This record gives sequence, structure tokens and C-alpha cells, in this order.
Amino acid sequence: MEFTFLGTSAGTPTRSRNVTALALSHSGYKPWYLVDCGEGTQHQLLRAHYSVMQLRAIFITHIHGDHTFGLPGLLTSASMLGRTEPLDIIAPVQTQRFINATLENSDSSLSYALNFTDSEASDFCWQDDYFEVTNVALSHRVPCRAYVFTERNLERQLLQGKLKQDGVEPGPNWGELQKGNDVTQEDGRLLRSDDYTQIPRVARRLIVAGDNDNPALLTDACKGSHVLIHEATYTQDVADRVGPWPQHSSAEQVARFAQQAQLPNLILTHFSSRYQSTPGGTPNINHLATEAMQHYRGQLFLARDFDTYRLEKDMSLICLSTENPF
Amino acid sequence: MEFTFLGTSAGTPTRSRNVTALALSHSGYKPWYLVDCGEGTQHQLLRAHYSVMQLRAIFITHIHGDHTFGLPGLLTSASMLGRTEPLDIIAPVQTQRFINATLENSDSSLSYALNFTDSEASDFCWQDDYFEVTNVALSHRVPCRAYVFTERNLERQLLQGKLKQDGVEPGPNWGELQKGNDVTQEDGRLLRSDDYTQIPRVARRLIVAGDNDNPALLTDACKGSHVLIHEATYTQDVADRVGPWPQHSSAEQVARFAQQAQLPNLILTHFSSRYQSTPGGTPNINHLATEAMQHYRGQLFLARDFDTYRLEKDMSLICLSTENPF
Repeated sequence: MEFTFLGTSAGTPTRSRNVTALALSHSGYKPWYLVDCGEGTQHQLLRAHYSVMQLRAIFITHIHGDHTFGLPGLLTSASMLGRTEPLDIIAPVQTQRFINATLENSDSSLSYALNFTDSEASDFCWQDDYFEVTNVALSHRVPCRAYVFTERNLERQLLQGKLKQDGVEPGPNWGELQKGNDVTQEDGRLLRSDDYTQIPRVARRLIVAGDNDNPALLTDACKGSHVLIHEATYTQDVADRVGPWPQHSSAEQVARFAQQAQLPNLILTHFSSRYQSTPGGTPNINHLATEAMQHYRGQLFLARDFDTYRLEKDMSLICLSTENPF
Repeated sequence: MEFTFLGTSAGTPTRSRNVTALALSHSGYKPWYLVDCGEGTQHQLLRAHYSVMQLRAIFITHIHGDHTFGLPGLLTSASMLGRTEPLDIIAPVQTQRFINATLENSDSSLSYALNFTDSEASDFCWQDDYFEVTNVALSHRVPCRAYVFTERNLERQLLQGKLKQDGVEPGPNWGELQKGNDVTQEDGRLLRSDDYTQIPRVARRLIVAGDNDNPALLTDACKGSHVLIHEATYTQDVADRVGPWPQHSSAEQVARFAQQAQLPNLILTHFSSRYQSTPGGTPNINHLATEAMQHYRGQLFLARDFDTYRLEKDMSLICLSTENPF
């Protein structure tokens, strides 16, 4: 599983950080999934490996503009490129209204269908061959969700000893069983894949959270999750000065939660534009890292635009950039 | 008068060219005016001299997304920065609907007022202390306008000989007359500014045209204009292949018109993303220049993102970039 941050700034873009978007894929770059789509996401994609032609679905955490205003441009550009594959959009109903009103009032039509799913539905669940996606309600100024991506259809290993013991000869049936399919032999015997294969590892699970001032809402979802991507808009001192109204988290708050939940990997993102990324700039993005490290002993990263991460099958998480100096 | 191209690509952004927007100012960078606002305009402004806090008015040529999708982000970012000055938006009514629907469906409110003016109104005219702006209907797939910026309140020179001859002594009244104000002397005599001053030059006039397949519609407006900024989406061969449906102009078509109209300065922009800016890339942006130069003998430029131009009081136009290699 790989994912690339396309925007890591809260509210407004800066010269080095765009507003929120994240590209995620299971293996290779097709299909891939987009979580949130701030203005300029299509521009960021011009500098990344993901093509809008292979985009399978867009997941929107909440309706705020810094997470959605890139949708009309991305959708119409895909149309100008000649996309014909339907595209799933999982979002609050207001985002659907925003998209429809925008297309109507800009003389735009798309060359492909949009399939909307209400992300706020109580029974929400989305899946394709690669992932099952569920979500968790967060606490923000508007309804907001975290998306939980759990991989599906893990590779099976054949129990060759048992197959031989039961007189199942090597051949095409072995291949079907390994794919997870049950097969009926020529002699009429039904062979169940579950009886003759095992899945030698657990499914990787990743949480991409939207804006949220109460990380503890993710307690249950974090059980069995390997990576949490969560906003840390402020350091605690700034959060105290700003007050509770924006309903964002501080680095300390998220770090404390991740430590409590014994999460192995935490990636912070969605930083207030006041935090400078250049050395010496103050307040500095490093202050967020320093604060988080005081409360969290797992593997910590601060997201940067275009940083790509790989979550391996052994659950190790690596940042593919040459360095991650926060 | 100065202006900076913030986007010069047609339809979709490329790595070196954003979609359409142009910043214009009379003197210094405040106030300033924006013509069109494609997605990512606020990002481009982070790398230019113009601040959204000093933006006086936005003029939209037509409703297409590559000219308007940057509006919601720019407007809400100005609000997050604490803007309180009202902002004029001159646009088709559908753009007003797009903005309103977007703000409503993204939980956005602005810290300042938007004053909408219908750009399609038959009696359209907008002015402030610096400019009078009129517009001209163009020919495109949707109603589209060219905006004609004519400077106002030109500096007056006192006719000192005449003042002395008529016994008007130097003093504060001279200052008022020079500002264009009529004054009443202590002896009750009314002095008209127009009688005692002259304007030693003509007003600078610039046309910023939207998408258009019929440059001749600008014939009247071009009389007395010093610069025309016009789209040249294609070279003629590509325009012929694409056919008339998109309703864009070729470089040849605009160049022929500008030559016919005896325009001193022509700047082409809004290039199809197929034209490469890198040396050797084909088809190349230079093909557009080569084609235009065959038909136009005035001063020709091809716009590039972030190129800034100055139209001097003597009507000379210079590109402030170190080079303009198309």
C-alpha cells in the first residue's frame, strides 16, 4: 500500500503546502483513491505518479472548502482528457449539491458518470477488489468522517500437504483454490478454498481522518490499525490561544491519543499556515514534531506535500522520500 | 499601468502554465483588479506582488470553469485573512449562482461583502478613481466579454500663463484646479479647472478579451487602444483539424485582425496544453509566435505565467521579465 500527500496545509495554501488531499493505492498506481480534494489538487497531480484516468473513487471527509474546492477542476479536467469510466464520490450530500451547482453554472458536462454515496449514511461501507472502506464520525464544526481502509482479498497460500493428503492433484484447481474460489472436481467433490489455503498475514489497515478535535472517537477504529493519518493544526500553546471554536486538534492531543491507543505509526498533517517549514522560520513546523514526540513513542512523521509512504505487508511503514526532516 | 499573467493555459493547467487569470493595476499594486480566476489563482498570487487584501474588483469574462473555479478559494482565503473591504465582482449571473451555491454548501461565510454586477447587462460600465471599464460582446460557446480598461483622472498641467493673465494668484486654488476641481475665489469668481489646465497626454487603454472566435468584434474597441490581450488557443493547422466547435481563435486569425486594426501591441495567451514550452517539445509554443509574426507587424508577445508588463504613459509597452522567449 502506498500513499502520497498532495496537500498538508490547513485552511489556505502556502508556497510549500497545498490544502488537503491524499492519494492512496494498493499496488502500483491503478486503481487509486483520493481522500479530500482541496483547490489545486489537479495541479499537484501533475507532479505526482497518479493519473486522474485511473482514479477509482474520491472520499470526502467533510464539506469545508479546503477539502473540496478542487473537485470541479479535477472532474472537468478528467472529462477533457476523455475519461469514460464512472467515478465514485463518497461525500456529504452538500458536496454533491456543490458539484452539481458548479457544473450547471459553468456550462460543464462530464464524459463519464459520477456515482455519489452519502458518507454520512449510518450503514456506510464501500468496497472494491482491493479495499473495504468504512468510516467513523469525528467532532468538527460540520459533520466529518475518518475513512478506514482495510485491504481485501489477501494472497492465499496453498496447504499443499493437505491437498496431496486428500488426493487433490496439482493443476488448474489449485490455482482456483489459491484465488479464493471453491471448485468442484470432475468426480463431483466440492473443494472449499478455505479448507485448502491459509492467509499468512493480517490485512493492512490505515485510517485517514478529517478535521477533528476529539481523537478518542477513533479508539475502536485504531484497534488493529497500522497507520493513523490525523490533523494536528496547532501546537498546544496556539490551540489554547485560539480557543475551542475551530474544533481542531493540537499535536499533543493527537500524540497522547496515539500513545494511549498503542498505534505503531502516526502521521500528522493539516498544519496551520503559521508554522514555517524553512529552517529558522518561527513558529516552526518542528515545534509540532517536538511536541508530539514528548507524548508518543511510536513511529512519528509530519506529512509534507509529495512525500510518499509505503506500508509493507510486514506492517513496516517507510517514507520513500530521501529524508523526512519534518 | 502594470499587469501580470497568473495563468496562460486553455482548459487545463500544465506544469508551467495555470488556467486563466490576469492581475492589473494602475500604479503600484493597490488597488488592483483581477480578470478571470481559474483554479489555483490564489496559489499563483502567493508568488506574485498582488495581495488579495488590496483587490478592488474581479472581472469575469465568461462562466467556463478554467476562468472561474478559483473564485471560491480566493474569496474564502481573503476572508480567513480578515478582509473587511467590500469586493466588486463583475460577472455573468451564473457565476454569482456558482459562488453562492458553493459558499452555502461548504459552510463558508465571508468577512466582507460581495457586490455583484451583471457583466452581460447592456448598459454595463464600471469605474473607480483609476479606470473606466466597459465591455464588448465576443463570440464563444457561452456569452463572453472583453473588458476595456481606460484610465481616468489623468494628471493635469496648469496653464500658468493664463492664470497669471487672468489675475489668479498662486496658492491653494492652483492646487485644486490641478486636481480637476472647479473653485470659487474670495471675490466670487468661479474658476473652471478645464479652463486653466490641460491634460498633456491621452488615456492609456487596454483590452483583456475572453475566449472568442471572432476578433473582428473588437474592431471599434481597438480604435484608441494600446494593447490587446487575446486568446490564441491554436495554430491555424490545429484549429482546422479541431473544427469550429470550441469557438476559439488561432494565432493567425488574431494576428491578421491586429494588423488590420493597426494595433501597436498584441499579447497572445490561453494556449492549448498541447503546445510545449520546453525547447524541442512539439508542437511548440514557438509555432504560435512564428505564425502570428507572419501576419502582424506590431509588437508581439506570447504571455507566460508571472510575466509582468508595464504600459508607460508614452504608450510604450515593456515586458519586465529579463527575456520573453515565448
